[in-house]
Amino acid sequence: QSNVVIYGVVDTGYIKENGSDVRMGSNIDNRIGFRGTEDLGSGQKATFELERRFNLNDGTLARPDKDWDGAANVGLRGDNWGAVRLGRINELSTETLRTLDPFYQYGVGSMLLSSQRSARIDNTIRYDSPSWTGFKFGASYSLGENMKNLTGVPASITNPDTADPNLRLEATPANVKYYGADNDGYAVMLGYDNGPLTLLANWSRLADSKKSYVWNAGGAYAFGPARISLAYEQTHDKGWREGEFSVKSKQHNWLLGLEWLLGPGRLNASFNYGKVKDVAWSDTDHGDKDVKKYALGYTYDLSKRTSIYGIVAYSDYEDDQVAGFYRNEGLNNQGDPASYDRDSVTGVQIGITHRF
Amino acid sequence: QSNVVIYGVVDTGYIKENGSDVRMGSNIDNRIGFRGTEDLGSGQKATFELERRFNLNDGTLARPDKDWDGAANVGLRGDNWGAVRLGRINELSTETLRTLDPFYQYGVGSMLLSSQRSARIDNTIRYDSPSWTGFKFGASYSLGENMKNLTGVPASITNPDTADPNLRLEATPANVKYYGADNDGYAVMLGYDNGPLTLLANWSRLADSKKSYVWNAGGAYAFGPARISLAYEQTHDKGWREGEFSVKSKQHNWLLGLEWLLGPGRLNASFNYGKVKDVAWSDTDHGDKDVKKYALGYTYDLSKRTSIYGIVAYSDYEDDQVAGFYRNEGLNNQGDPASYDRDSVTGVQIGITHRF
Amino acid sequence: QSNVVIYGVVDTGYIKENGSDVRMGSNIDNRIGFRGTEDLGSGQKATFELERRFNLNDGTLARPDKDWDGAANVGLRGDNWGAVRLGRINELSTETLRTLDPFYQYGVGSMLLSSQRSARIDNTIRYDSPSWTGFKFGASYSLGENMKNLTGVPASITNPDTADPNLRLEATPANVKYYGADNDGYAVMLGYDNGPLTLLANWSRLADSKKSYVWNAGGAYAFGPARISLAYEQTHDKGWREGEFSVKSKQHNWLLGLEWLLGPGRLNASFNYGKVKDVAWSDTDHGDKDVKKYALGYTYDLSKRTSIYGIVAYSDYEDDQVAGFYRNEGLNNQGDPASYDRDSVTGVQIGITHRF
Repeated sequence: QSNVVIYGVVDTGYIKENGSDVRMGSNIDNRIGFRGTEDLGSGQKATFELERRFNLNDGTLARPDKDWDGAANVGLRGDNWGAVRLGRINELSTETLRTLDPFYQYGVGSMLLSSQRSARIDNTIRYDSPSWTGFKFGASYSLGENMKNLTGVPASITNPDTADPNLRLEATPANVKYYGADNDGYAVMLGYDNGPLTLLANWSRLADSKKSYVWNAGGAYAFGPARISLAYEQTHDKGWREGEFSVKSKQHNWLLGLEWLLGPGRLNASFNYGKVKDVAWSDTDHGDKDVKKYALGYTYDLSKRTSIYGIVAYSDYEDDQVAGFYRNEGLNNQGDPASYDRDSVTGVQIGITHRF
Repeated sequence: QSNVVIYGVVDTGYIKENGSDVRMGSNIDNRIGFRGTEDLGSGQKATFELERRFNLNDGTLARPDKDWDGAANVGLRGDNWGAVRLGRINELSTETLRTLDPFYQYGVGSMLLSSQRSARIDNTIRYDSPSWTGFKFGASYSLGENMKNLTGVPASITNPDTADPNLRLEATPANVKYYGADNDGYAVMLGYDNGPLTLLANWSRLADSKKSYVWNAGGAYAFGPARISLAYEQTHDKGWREGEFSVKSKQHNWLLGLEWLLGPGRLNASFNYGKVKDVAWSDTDHGDKDVKKYALGYTYDLSKRTSIYGIVAYSDYEDDQVAGFYRNEGLNNQGDPASYDRDSVTGVQIGITHRF
Repeated sequence: QSNVVIYGVVDTGYIKENGSDVRMGSNIDNRIGFRGTEDLGSGQKATFELERRFNLNDGTLARPDKDWDGAANVGLRGDNWGAVRLGRINELSTETLRTLDPFYQYGVGSMLLSSQRSARIDNTIRYDSPSWTGFKFGASYSLGENMKNLTGVPASITNPDTADPNLRLEATPANVKYYGADNDGYAVMLGYDNGPLTLLANWSRLADSKKSYVWNAGGAYAFGPARISLAYEQTHDKGWREGEFSVKSKQHNWLLGLEWLLGPGRLNASFNYGKVKDVAWSDTDHGDKDVKKYALGYTYDLSKRTSIYGIVAYSDYEDDQVAGFYRNEGLNNQGDPASYDRDSVTGVQIGITHRF
């Protein structure tokens, strides 16, 4: 059928981290997509994307509630004015920043993640400019959930102003509304990409996040077979994220990356440094905590579409609490960061990636 | 792959109704389908259809339990005798009646819906005749759920004959069986379509509906760029619908529609009048209640496959109870029609539709 | 899109068994798949398979949690060394043994099933040898669930050694771990396929099955339009299967099958004999119980891709308990085989199969 292109990635292999059994898992997220472009004439086009995400090791959806987790949008594109899309779309901040990570935010070598970024966002309209001699601009606006019809304060609601700031309640629309987390989201991106130099900066706010926000900036420079990248990201997490409770905190993440075309593939290496501030780790412990992460990988290309890879990463957390914070196992029922059972993690991953 | 055709619709935009926040939503239901036809020789063919339905704004399935909500069937077709299909198929009554609605039963401008029609039905065998100089005939038979193995009356069952007719219990197979709602479904359609004139009539009964039924009749006449349509539908709802509780009622819906090819697109307009009878709105209020709905829309074609649209609709309900009845928010836990919070609703919708 | 082949089966019809209402159901499992092969040069290839399974009669997924129930894997294949695949893959034991069943383990005529075989298995690496003058070899290894992080014995755990062997608890990872059911799975297959003769043997152990295992062996011989097959399977079920409770038992199943090319289709016939041992049917009844099953079917080909079929099967169970055991309705909450309500079942099935 000429109107639809089918594409995808299948990737799986083995991951061993200390503290866990060997498990099967992917590096690049598994997906199958259907996309198309219709020429409307005069340089105008209509576009759509539908993309599933799933786990190859057991055939389950990546997110059980998302039929098209990877993309679900329709739009118009013009050669001279750019593109507008509506629906579920890549978040600008994540889509661009991850290009500076040699591991592209995948697998055991992934950069440290801000708690206020998301890979894709719902109910969004996004604009992307064309490239003007390398300069690009992007912006998006996302609707929060419909809270208008909610009436009456639920019995579980206590005064938002006097409530324990770490109190973690069920993420119901009523809680989102009465704790003041109901907001629309938006994002702005500036980029420059010309010859060896890449520069980018983002400011973004997720929907229903109590106006939490994140900004980041970075760049990369390529010389010969190598590319070096540097990025900084600052997160202001007010305790909500897309209608779910989060950990109230301020996060600083730094990334230094290297990609090197070496032999029949690529060597990737990165150093990440993260610092988490303003968290009530306990009644008496509100101190800053940090993590250093070192990652090294090699991808061997069997063809343009198929490769095998090996990655090793070591994360040295200041203590087990900040380990839990970054490993997404960090919240107990009361919203306090829970302790993870170790303060350093070594991960080894091997596998195969095939694109179609 | 020559055996499969991939097709679909992606459609989203913005909807604002008074009483709700702005939200993203579709006009024509989003879908992707796989269908094929095999030539068996002698004018005989084998056919199949598989069609997903989903929400483009957030990538979720339209109905979480239906992988192929839109269609899942296999069949045979003969040039001289018509077609038989088995599986999940369009309900004849809805498939044909909606062609008289200028808004095709989609979006804020949709015609009023009978509580005893469904867009697609399960466990169905459907026959469609070929067209005999414009005359067509269709019939379907649908199996109800398997109740035979149920033994023993659940404790929750009270005497069906003396129970409150509006009593709303959990829609379990046992309740379906012991309240007498267990029945197979069937439908018959007669149609005539020749030159400017379209005429059609349906009689149908959903499975497990306590033998509730609906009939409708209507027609359309095209002259020059315009088509005028008129339809009437009568519903006898005995309090069940496909194994779920419904509101015991009798419904009369009228539709007057206009489609007008105007400029590079189509103007659509409709007036709907609905009257609901025999409902126990409260212990003392059993009166008839009505609604008048006015809808106006324009679809601008960017190409044969891509268009943008704007629709405005105003519904004037007799009171907030009948508003809740028609807006499908009408049932509280006891089966009484719940009150909606307003007795008129204005809806405005804009968006983009792309077919592939 | 040249990289992807879309294929599938749509099949539905009517099934009537005594004790149940007529229902719609399939013979060959409904599926749609996406697969591809990339030539890497030097006789090496990359491969992938993604295959959905669903119910055609109502459009639901075959297993609600499995997006790709039929297959989800990536691999490499070499002309001279065979193939390796990783992900969710056919279990060797089922894939090969079912080729000896004239009904291919589908529909009312299916062979008797071992409680320790599965059609597809997760978290698996599988090797298939090339054919060496008809001789083939296969092996697979499957990871069990990750139990390492579980700490602390749940309150519900009683001493595994002294617990009632038939005790059936919730199938939680903690129960899997503390009742000793946590194990990796593996399988070995030997086959010979040359001219009219087929021979095969399997040994396999499912993951998280308390090291339950099954082995089987069989063969087939074709002469003229007919093929006769014979198989034997022995199952040692220790009360777990893929992390779920099962019935502790030993099972012996025999199969005698006939396929006969007759007219424009195929006649299929089989006789199955099963014996279940070492089950605590009740406090006093631990005896062996058996079943005899007779099945006869005819498949009429409308084309190479489309056929209609009719099957009749009669199962004569020793009593209603062993009927429940084989009909998968056999477990009550305490792990005791529940009684089915009849000790013989006749099933009749008609339908249509279309491949695309």
